Amino acid sequence: MADTDPLDQLQAVIRTRLGGDPATSYVAKLHSRGRAKIAQKVGEEAVETVIAAIADDREGLVSESADLLFHLLVLLADAGLSLDDVRAELHRREGLSGIAEKAARPR
Amino acid sequence: MADTDPLDQLQAVIRTRLGGDPATSYVAKLHSRGRAKIAQKVGEEAVETVIAAIADDREGLVSESADLLFHLLVLLADAGLSLDDVRAELHRREGLSGIAEKAARPR
Amino acid sequence: MADTDPLDQLQAVIRTRLGGDPATSYVAKLHSRGRAKIAQKVGEEAVETVIAAIADDREGLVSESADLLFHLLVLLADAGLSLDDVRAELHRREGLSGIAEKAARPR
Amino acid sequence: MADTDPLDQLQAVIRTRLGGDPATSYVAKLHSRGRAKIAQKVGEEAVETVIAAIADDREGLVSESADLLFHLLVLLADAGLSLDDVRAELHRREGLSGIAEKAARPR
Repeated sequence: MADTDPLDQLQAVIRTRLGGDPATSYVAKLHSRGRAKIAQKVGEEAVETVIAAIADDREGLVSESADLLFHLLVLLADAGLSLDDVRAELHRREGLSGIAEKAARPR
Repeated sequence: MADTDPLDQLQAVIRTRLGGDPATSYVAKLHSRGRAKIAQKVGEEAVETVIAAIADDREGLVSESADLLFHLLVLLADAGLSLDDVRAELHRREGLSGIAEKAARPR
Repeated sequence: MADTDPLDQLQAVIRTRLGGDPATSYVAKLHSRGRAKIAQKVGEEAVETVIAAIADDREGLVSESADLLFHLLVLLADAGLSLDDVRAELHRREGLSGIAEKAARPR
Repeated sequence: MADTDPLDQLQAVIRTRLGGDPATSYVAKLHSRGRAKIAQKVGEEAVETVIAAIADDREGLVSESADLLFHLLVLLADAGLSLDDVRAELHRREGLSGIAEKAARPR
């Protein structure tokens, strides 16, 4: 029941807002500005996540990770994709328990 | 029961591998190279996610989002944080249903 | 005589290599992989520049800035643009001496 | 006479402004917010440069490249470094004409 995950609940909210009024919804505003603008936000929040991590700012790392995840969910929704698609991809990589070892091969 | 979420299962695997053998575990290898290197991977995967999104490469967007999430989980684990910390932060922002609207304010 | 600037000399070399043999030229190899791959490298080198700067790694900052500038020149060349186009844009922003102050306005 | 390069002129202006009044100078404002904030701007402008390049937005690519270079110069100046340090590093990589080929080796 992945839908009990707060991330999926958030995703459901985001989907509802995508086509909303840009004047009252941040998600609708992002959507109205186009895919590139949403992607730009993902990139920017990743930069802030990187900076918080390097500065060993734990509170900042949690806050920026939340911003990053939020905008990633908006980006996926804008493309008609969902967090479950990402979960399936992670799972597909030969089973969850295999991921962390398989990836140890040179890349 | 967030722990049934594949993301949490993946997180549990990552935590186990963090202190493992860098020769056989990608997560352990990343951990041994230090926080900055893990953060760098998060930044790089975000760039790839951005590019896939703009190119409207749906398959690539799912794949790069998976890479991004995976490395974000490693970064959080390396800092002693968890996805639940991020979920709590998203929740704290005045309730899940409020996030998408509250954020509409100029920032 | 901007052409005496090592950056312009480097740019001239890059232009020559763009259409070269991917087997022997890194620039030609990048070019053969397409615009998105070159842009990806610019994004990645920027992430490394950010990390070196935050870590106060002066040697690393110079090295990563060199990588960033190098790949930016390749990206501009791939798009048929030049460093002089960027210089002109910087100049256009109401005179060099005005840039740093004008930009102080909220953005 | 690298100082005739508009980039060096811009760099000289930036250095003068670094210690200026944050209320009237954007450079001074950035400086007052600290190294991490300047680095963040470099990362953000790189993301925008990547997006403009992928979207084949030539005008945007020139504009974002100018923003990226401007903030990179501020970052270098903030660290007591200069564009000449970067030029020297590019030169050091076994001669300008060698760069583009040497780098063709796997990395």
